[in-house]
Amino acid sequence: MSKKQLSIGLLGCGTVGGGLVELVNRNRELLRERSGVELTIKKILVRDPKKHRPGVDPDLITTHPEKVIKNGCDMVVELVGGIEPARSFIHTALAGRKHVVTANKALLATDGYSLLQAAAQQKVRFGFEASVCGGIPIIRALRSGLVGNQIHSLTGILNGTCNYILTRMEEDRAEFSEALSQAQKKGFAEEDPTLDIDGHDAAQKLKILAELAFNARVSAEQMSVQGIRDITADDLRMAEELNCVIRHVATAEMAGDAVTLRVEPVLLPSTHQLSSVRDENNAVLVRGDAVGEMLFHGKGAGSLPTASAVLSDIVDIACNKTGRSPLSKRTMDTKTPNIVSRRYLRFPVNEPSAIGPITTVLERNGITVQRAAATWAKNGNDRSQVKILTQSCPAESLDRALDEISRMEALQGKSLVLRFAE
Amino acid sequence: MSKKQLSIGLLGCGTVGGGLVELVNRNRELLRERSGVELTIKKILVRDPKKHRPGVDPDLITTHPEKVIKNGCDMVVELVGGIEPARSFIHTALAGRKHVVTANKALLATDGYSLLQAAAQQKVRFGFEASVCGGIPIIRALRSGLVGNQIHSLTGILNGTCNYILTRMEEDRAEFSEALSQAQKKGFAEEDPTLDIDGHDAAQKLKILAELAFNARVSAEQMSVQGIRDITADDLRMAEELNCVIRHVATAEMAGDAVTLRVEPVLLPSTHQLSSVRDENNAVLVRGDAVGEMLFHGKGAGSLPTASAVLSDIVDIACNKTGRSPLSKRTMDTKTPNIVSRRYLRFPVNEPSAIGPITTVLERNGITVQRAAATWAKNGNDRSQVKILTQSCPAESLDRALDEISRMEALQGKSLVLRFAE
Repeated sequence: MSKKQLSIGLLGCGTVGGGLVELVNRNRELLRERSGVELTIKKILVRDPKKHRPGVDPDLITTHPEKVIKNGCDMVVELVGGIEPARSFIHTALAGRKHVVTANKALLATDGYSLLQAAAQQKVRFGFEASVCGGIPIIRALRSGLVGNQIHSLTGILNGTCNYILTRMEEDRAEFSEALSQAQKKGFAEEDPTLDIDGHDAAQKLKILAELAFNARVSAEQMSVQGIRDITADDLRMAEELNCVIRHVATAEMAGDAVTLRVEPVLLPSTHQLSSVRDENNAVLVRGDAVGEMLFHGKGAGSLPTASAVLSDIVDIACNKTGRSPLSKRTMDTKTPNIVSRRYLRFPVNEPSAIGPITTVLERNGITVQRAAATWAKNGNDRSQVKILTQSCPAESLDRALDEISRMEALQGKSLVLRFAE
Repeated sequence: MSKKQLSIGLLGCGTVGGGLVELVNRNRELLRERSGVELTIKKILVRDPKKHRPGVDPDLITTHPEKVIKNGCDMVVELVGGIEPARSFIHTALAGRKHVVTANKALLATDGYSLLQAAAQQKVRFGFEASVCGGIPIIRALRSGLVGNQIHSLTGILNGTCNYILTRMEEDRAEFSEALSQAQKKGFAEEDPTLDIDGHDAAQKLKILAELAFNARVSAEQMSVQGIRDITADDLRMAEELNCVIRHVATAEMAGDAVTLRVEPVLLPSTHQLSSVRDENNAVLVRGDAVGEMLFHGKGAGSLPTASAVLSDIVDIACNKTGRSPLSKRTMDTKTPNIVSRRYLRFPVNEPSAIGPITTVLERNGITVQRAAATWAKNGNDRSQVKILTQSCPAESLDRALDEISRMEALQGKSLVLRFAE
């Protein structure tokens, strides 16, 4: 087979970009043997040209995007992240009929459709395996490996930061803030961790996966997104008592003609396939009509795992393997389902006696309380708490009850609701 | 995007072939939407034309292979299985410049290279996702998703029959023969289960995966293959005591310039990723230099899961996505590694006092005995047994000791050796 030459213009040389350069250098021969592809990185856009970048040829470095995008390369790899200027870079590259590979989940979640449309118009290819779950080839699985399946649902641990924090809280009995600063020290959480711990990062990834799984555009507006900020070490202990773990889970599910999208911390029984996902790992559980349940589990972030995904797109495009998938014109409604499930509720109260009125409100709304307990505040920073385990109940009844409870004078702050995902 | 018409000649309409017809009929619209492909099954080869096949148009049925292979279809899908006449069918199809998709692991394991070579010469495509692990897209992962990785090792539960039997023995405390007949009743084991329970099926799959992972031809001659026939309910209980499970595991590993291939029942600690694989499921754990550990888990056999894999190849070929990978001319040596590991040994003996001499032989060969126990025969069919847990020791020392022990008069049959995979 003849060799295929492919020259790359690389936008960004941070964690993922640096990993890509390292991987291309290290595995050059292997790539040639496996795919017949000879890769050359022609130019690299950086912000700070003076920074020391081991393994990167300084002659390739530039601070002018047009020198990367308009210099005769075959493909532009966008790894600067964020919406702008990444979006303009990609549109310029596509307009110049260059193939594009990106790891940019934020951009994909907001502008994925128009980018794919632009690529299709220019008859070039657009790869985004690295935008979700790092090294796990989940985009390929949905586009190709499982292409013959109706996907019923997709459930995943899509945010490594949240999973690392919850695992630390579970194993070290650490409080949220301690686990968060440990994650920051280890490089698993940003200095401003908001996007991760409040669930927005997982929500963006879920939208990308749901559109592929259901082959339709879905709106993220109806997505219910809950982060892990309010989870306490005490909640983890309670989960353990119930033979469960707490995981931050993203779910996309077909419900008739509509789709439901949820990102939330849930209680998973220890027999659940996602309960064994630890530390910064990611996993996706796909249910298809032909394959049944299929689990993909691995490193969802990090320099080399993400670079591995970028590289797989580059090689597929070089080998002409990434066919132009048709753009679906379908849009699907998203709706909030009235999930019937057992739930764990925790209320901060001014005194433990609030357990009586709270239980009464729940029962009046048709919710059977299975267990209830109240604790005194231990010190000045602490609050008294009422904790309740309900029997299976519909979300709508619960929402009515919670609304009533929120107006009770005894309530001293935000309550926590965790669903049992069974 | 314009529609792509693709006509298929189908060889075989058994479990997988019937599943394919069902899936193509059921998800026709979805396939059209997702990939722009319009599939038509033009002719179907069967052995018995009179058999009732619900959902299959009787006009398509034929007993003449040439009516399927030489009738102007674009692609031949081979699902008859076995070496001949499947091999001749495929060579005829390739010679007629038809794309080929197959689920035939036995043929792939023996003739994979020459089939790929013939396809490359004819410039047609050859898909075999369905030959290993049913619906799990592991072939794609190795050829495309993880293409940028040096693969260090690949460890998998590749045979659903063995895993079902071991799970039943574990959960129901059943003996091997009971669990086997349960598997046969459920359709998870053939009437003649030899290929599965003696490890040959897993060995064929391992060879296919290893050649893809290491991009080289490997010989299966040096493969050590051990089945699960000798495992008893008692061994499972011992495993439980050690906080382990017994799983039938296939491993391909780089060792310098050579490869080691093993198929064997091993003791897995309950924290091991493969220990939670239950019933007839399959799983593959891949270790790559960039992605780290990646797990794929799902249904490894069955009508629709396997048909899903066949269909993914059909659609990729129709969309021109399955690039012709170069054929590696490299061959790699296989070698038997001197694995250092803890081991569980069980010896059938004429009387429990044999524990003394057996322990002495082990210690003389440098093997430290961590625990030893002897049991009396419970009834006439039973034997007295000596069970030993060793500390970590090299396979070569153990083999020397076992050789000596095998010549002891006290020994009354085959001993069992299980490695701890840690």
